[in-house]
Amino acid sequence: MRIDILTVLPELLEGPFSHSILKRARERNLLEVHVHQLRAYTPYKHGQVDDTQFGGGAGMVMMVEPIALAIESLQQQVSYDEIIYLTPDGERLNQQIANQLSLKNNLLLLCGHYKGVDERIRQHFITREISIGDYVLSGGELAAAVLTDAIGRLIPGVLNNETSALTDSFQDNLLAPPVYTRPAEYRGWKVPEVLLCGDPKKIDEWRHEQSVLRTQERRPDLPEA
Amino acid sequence: MRIDILTVLPELLEGPFSHSILKRARERNLLEVHVHQLRAYTPYKHGQVDDTQFGGGAGMVMMVEPIALAIESLQQQVSYDEIIYLTPDGERLNQQIANQLSLKNNLLLLCGHYKGVDERIRQHFITREISIGDYVLSGGELAAAVLTDAIGRLIPGVLNNETSALTDSFQDNLLAPPVYTRPAEYRGWKVPEVLLCGDPKKIDEWRHEQSVLRTQERRPDLPEA
Repeated sequence: MRIDILTVLPELLEGPFSHSILKRARERNLLEVHVHQLRAYTPYKHGQVDDTQFGGGAGMVMMVEPIALAIESLQQQVSYDEIIYLTPDGERLNQQIANQLSLKNNLLLLCGHYKGVDERIRQHFITREISIGDYVLSGGELAAAVLTDAIGRLIPGVLNNETSALTDSFQDNLLAPPVYTRPAEYRGWKVPEVLLCGDPKKIDEWRHEQSVLRTQERRPDLPEA
Repeated sequence: MRIDILTVLPELLEGPFSHSILKRARERNLLEVHVHQLRAYTPYKHGQVDDTQFGGGAGMVMMVEPIALAIESLQQQVSYDEIIYLTPDGERLNQQIANQLSLKNNLLLLCGHYKGVDERIRQHFITREISIGDYVLSGGELAAAVLTDAIGRLIPGVLNNETSALTDSFQDNLLAPPVYTRPAEYRGWKVPEVLLCGDPKKIDEWRHEQSVLRTQERRPDLPEA
């Protein structure tokens, strides 16, 4: 899988893709991530990519032309399954969408900044708009990093043990059960006895009960709860 | 405001806080972000902070003791308003929660990794559990970065023009209207005429209509829509 990211702040994205699971995914050639500086594509002087908005008001808007030229230049090298704009008014990311996108070959992610991108980019180039949640960030970069991480870890072979992702929260519309590790007692706080009983069937039952309980308490809105 | 972040991957968080708006917030002394390596607090050999889970199953669990000692050590220097664990089964972050947290003085954010932290940490140390969305990430680091960004930009004085945040999506349970900038026509795609009319009242009305329309189409679930 290949993910291209178009941004005015490529430096911000250096950390997230150089560590841990995404690093491993890249080393195993399961995932390529290419970060592109949008300013390299602008026809305007001094790398200009934004301007004040028509109609007045606070906040700059990212101009149509640099983004149009950047997307078309990248499309000459790669055929994208989706060109995704990260925006708080997009479709809300969930585990099902992440699963779905992890099966694609090539994705292009566009990071907005300031007040967002000129609407004409959204109308004529973007195939999908995704929000990572109902809050506003200073730019789309962290949203692109979150989306890349959520997708990247689902690519087969990225996690060492595939059952690890299948038992995560949301894969079956249930939250994960509580987890415990050594020591069995710390400051008088004990691990539930069932986890020490050695009977896999009992442990599975307890975990399922705990998942259902936690989901009912915390997320009664999830479809299967 | 001061935000402390406890993580096994401090390197991952270097980019997000060194650029753009959070950089400015730090330069203006409006926000201090301190990232702490959890391994520095472990009493176990070789910086061990995780172990296999009781009851069996894939994925490692972060041990109770290193986190307990780290939190207590930080508490000797700072009095925290909230100790927040980033987890997919927490309360879902939204703009109201971000507004609320931006008024606090000191926050401690704990980043989980692998299958998460030993439940006893959640029971005895954590005062609030927050999820940035219904999907699973390879760790809590990006979630902590997202939360810090969402909060940080709301601290008065961080954004250059405060009206800029007030007109963002979600501040009034409406999505933001479309935005446009120069040129007024590109490849035959024109900016809506009303934005060029110069009448602020007409422009405000159009923007409000567009916000309501977009919210009805995309997010009929938002309370005021």
